Amino acid sequence: MSVDESNNVHTRLQVHNCVVQPLLTDLYQITMAYAYWKSEKTSDTAVFDLFFRQNPFQGEFTIFGGLEECLRFLENFNYSDSDIEYLKKTLPPTIEQSFFGYLKELTAKDVKLYAIDEGSVVFPRVPLIRVEGPLIVVQLLETTLLTLVNFSSLMATNAARYRMAAGDNVSLLEFGLRRAQGPDGGLSASKYAYIGGFDGTSNLLAGKMFNIPVKGTHAHAYITSFSNPSELKTKTLINLNNGKEQDLIDLTLSWRTTLSNLLHISESQASDGELAALVSFAIAFPEGFVALIDTYDVNKSGILNFCAVALALNDLGYKAIGVRIDSGDLAYLSNKSRETFVKIAKEFNIPWFANLTIIASNDINEETIWSLNDQKHSIDCFGIGTHLVTCQRQPALGCVYKLVEVNGTPRIKLSQDGSKITMPGKKDAFRLYGADGFALIDLLKKSVEDPPIAKTKLLCRHPFDQKKRAFVVPSEIKPLYKVYWENGRIMQRLPDLKEVREHVKESLRTIRPDIKRNLNPTPYKVSVSDDLYEFMHELWMRNTPIGELS
Amino acid sequence: MSVDESNNVHTRLQVHNCVVQPLLTDLYQITMAYAYWKSEKTSDTAVFDLFFRQNPFQGEFTIFGGLEECLRFLENFNYSDSDIEYLKKTLPPTIEQSFFGYLKELTAKDVKLYAIDEGSVVFPRVPLIRVEGPLIVVQLLETTLLTLVNFSSLMATNAARYRMAAGDNVSLLEFGLRRAQGPDGGLSASKYAYIGGFDGTSNLLAGKMFNIPVKGTHAHAYITSFSNPSELKTKTLINLNNGKEQDLIDLTLSWRTTLSNLLHISESQASDGELAALVSFAIAFPEGFVALIDTYDVNKSGILNFCAVALALNDLGYKAIGVRIDSGDLAYLSNKSRETFVKIAKEFNIPWFANLTIIASNDINEETIWSLNDQKHSIDCFGIGTHLVTCQRQPALGCVYKLVEVNGTPRIKLSQDGSKITMPGKKDAFRLYGADGFALIDLLKKSVEDPPIAKTKLLCRHPFDQKKRAFVVPSEIKPLYKVYWENGRIMQRLPDLKEVREHVKESLRTIRPDIKRNLNPTPYKVSVSDDLYEFMHELWMRNTPIGELS
Repeated sequence: MSVDESNNVHTRLQVHNCVVQPLLTDLYQITMAYAYWKSEKTSDTAVFDLFFRQNPFQGEFTIFGGLEECLRFLENFNYSDSDIEYLKKTLPPTIEQSFFGYLKELTAKDVKLYAIDEGSVVFPRVPLIRVEGPLIVVQLLETTLLTLVNFSSLMATNAARYRMAAGDNVSLLEFGLRRAQGPDGGLSASKYAYIGGFDGTSNLLAGKMFNIPVKGTHAHAYITSFSNPSELKTKTLINLNNGKEQDLIDLTLSWRTTLSNLLHISESQASDGELAALVSFAIAFPEGFVALIDTYDVNKSGILNFCAVALALNDLGYKAIGVRIDSGDLAYLSNKSRETFVKIAKEFNIPWFANLTIIASNDINEETIWSLNDQKHSIDCFGIGTHLVTCQRQPALGCVYKLVEVNGTPRIKLSQDGSKITMPGKKDAFRLYGADGFALIDLLKKSVEDPPIAKTKLLCRHPFDQKKRAFVVPSEIKPLYKVYWENGRIMQRLPDLKEVREHVKESLRTIRPDIKRNLNPTPYKVSVSDDLYEFMHELWMRNTPIGELS
Repeated sequence: MSVDESNNVHTRLQVHNCVVQPLLTDLYQITMAYAYWKSEKTSDTAVFDLFFRQNPFQGEFTIFGGLEECLRFLENFNYSDSDIEYLKKTLPPTIEQSFFGYLKELTAKDVKLYAIDEGSVVFPRVPLIRVEGPLIVVQLLETTLLTLVNFSSLMATNAARYRMAAGDNVSLLEFGLRRAQGPDGGLSASKYAYIGGFDGTSNLLAGKMFNIPVKGTHAHAYITSFSNPSELKTKTLINLNNGKEQDLIDLTLSWRTTLSNLLHISESQASDGELAALVSFAIAFPEGFVALIDTYDVNKSGILNFCAVALALNDLGYKAIGVRIDSGDLAYLSNKSRETFVKIAKEFNIPWFANLTIIASNDINEETIWSLNDQKHSIDCFGIGTHLVTCQRQPALGCVYKLVEVNGTPRIKLSQDGSKITMPGKKDAFRLYGADGFALIDLLKKSVEDPPIAKTKLLCRHPFDQKKRAFVVPSEIKPLYKVYWENGRIMQRLPDLKEVREHVKESLRTIRPDIKRNLNPTPYKVSVSDDLYEFMHELWMRNTPIGELS
């Protein structure tokens, strides 16, 4: 645990990635537990499926996130004395007191949890997690598992979509903490954006907790806090070529005059406050100089001031990193900046100057990136905030946790809304691949069935539509579930964030481009075996009230 | 602090309402701090305004939330040894080491914070918080203050809007934990939904931490886990009238036969599993019996089973509470349920039966409530999840934190986008009220100006539009700011959640109905004094580059 012992201040969120309390749940989980207990159902067993019914963002795929947090929650599942005390005063006084003794002893040691690997591409109706064990305990896990999986998966999916829009050669940074849904919303966003394919975050606490690269430069306030170069107290920087201190302001001003002629930008229009701010920032970070250039006017002030400082730094042996543009027409301003860099690179024979990094960061979403791609831009890096971290296009994923078996007997939840009917019983899931390495279809089978065999003809049926069926001869088959939790402990080596991030990439590579595309993607098929189909529909028939058309 | 010492497990979120770490910020706040430090700006002072530019949800008002959390953050603002260690390895190696010694000593003791009372109705451009103090420290607070105010205010506003839609006679419960943006997103939602006017939450941890009423019944899984009454091990309940144990199943089955005739619902269509589940739940919670009645079919099964159990309970001296409907046509099903309750109340002369509570809870948002109101419904209580807790209609509020003064000199941030221009200098805010008690207009003045006087003619100007101005003679004037933080401590008694919740109601009562309405609300006016107008525009002129049309 990354608990900060040193300052002895218990802080919110300090062990974000470790422990969630069992009281982080809905009251009705506890009232149900009591009703089950009161009905003497303490030795009943149950199976629950955790799944979603629809991919987010009008897309046709989802990335599964949150598994490690679920497992850490199971490891620590136990009501504290103060939890019990709180429940005693909150539940009705008619509750038998011995129930609280029972609650106090509960742990997740008799629970068995199967799951798909975290970071995998997943699809609607295929359970991400299957939980088996004592009915009361597995019911008590519901809300917490859902809250841990829902936002994590949504965020990782959102990030993966931004990554696909941006392509592999552009950096993506998460800048959203200030607009996130609370401090922890911001931390979850940093973590799962990284898993989904972002390169770093501006969030320092996320960097510290999760070992994610942190990036950032300065804000407009830094620029506006300076009025002119005369107020700078520190003016010099060591020349790496000769070890001597040199006045960076003089050098910058001299370069600004030179550039003013070359670039046809009037020096009198350029802000002296901005120049002072950039020089002081360059003195502080001579080897990591990134400048915000849109505080006053990119074309009339920012680009001129930046290039003057960057060339002065170059004289002293330092290479500037680049610029950030936070407003205006990002395609135009980035192209204009690139042109300027190229011109200077040629004029003064400094080839690397042409490749200075251009970061864009104003209210960017997935559509903006697609549109900038169409317009052609020169942006090397996007800093993305609000739209990414709040998943503005769809701020919630609808994972549900459904009872599918009690004491070995399958359960089905019928619904007047056909799409909400659950698939009963214990099931296993397989992904079938074609010869080209792409996933063909997911296949759900009853767990008692034999697993499917590659290179044989397999009947795959639509779960609800009797007419839709196909024979598939897969080149390869991968079972999707592993036992992740049994006998009170985690049963698999858990990958670190970097490995999960790699797994996202690999998993996405096996999905056909038309399924992943932004516009009108093709739905990926999820099928059931003939046995499961018959089993489901027989149970469905048996549970449908007479005289009902459904 | 509500740290749970007893189980000695450090848990995420355990002190949600107390402490946020100073490292919960953007890297660039620290890089700016270093650049300022390197420029010898440690004794510079600055003033920042925290404000938003647009009300959320296409409305014309916002509720201010998050102030207490900001103040707790200031109380504990201090980098730990491990924070410093992390920063040392994260920032470039060129950084002078003595900077870290400087950082380690930083506290918020020299900061002065003015704020509007938490729970107040607030409007665009009027700073919610004004922070004064050492430039470096007040800059370091930026991201954390924003992340604490943004979601809290958004949530409280969203909740207040639901409350207005539902009216004062309907209960509102927050049920969103499972769909929230992470565990803390869920906790913040519970807290600020309560402040905004909700009556309770299903979230137990929120109940424990914030002392919010918790509510809830059971889930569909509870119903589907039962097959028929024969499996019930506990069948009896004590008759409050005579102290004898009585078989609740027999009694319920007998009532069901009676009701089947009265209500013309076939007993053979009603689910026996549902009946068993409801009886067992009634045995567990005889005095708090609320039943989910839509698992199979409200009209053919749920309502019949519920009424049978409720009448059996009534025979034993218990009053059932009501039903929850989680799918289907909520207006129709609630009216149908109410009709049934009224019919039974009359038939068996049990007047209270007519007023059983009807809770609705399926994917409800603000628009659904307005639409249900139009259709006429019989719902007494809404349980609201996803749309409420993720603020689906607009998942982020855009508060910003802008530098307005450095070392006593005003600062203005110009922008090609006129609406993004900041109002420079230290300002005070006043709310002017008419004789009817409604707020007329907010007025910003330079802090050096005399405060406005009630019952005198006051010139109120539009901040940007030269032509828009009005004379106002307010009956009453309230200054909006109080000093909330000075000399390292909180300067006001902080109200508890209930008091903040009351303040939201009172504050909303002073806002004209046309400003608060859902459809095409009238914008509330925010004005500036003549002095502030001239001051702003003079500074604006002085900072506008030559040849620029803006």
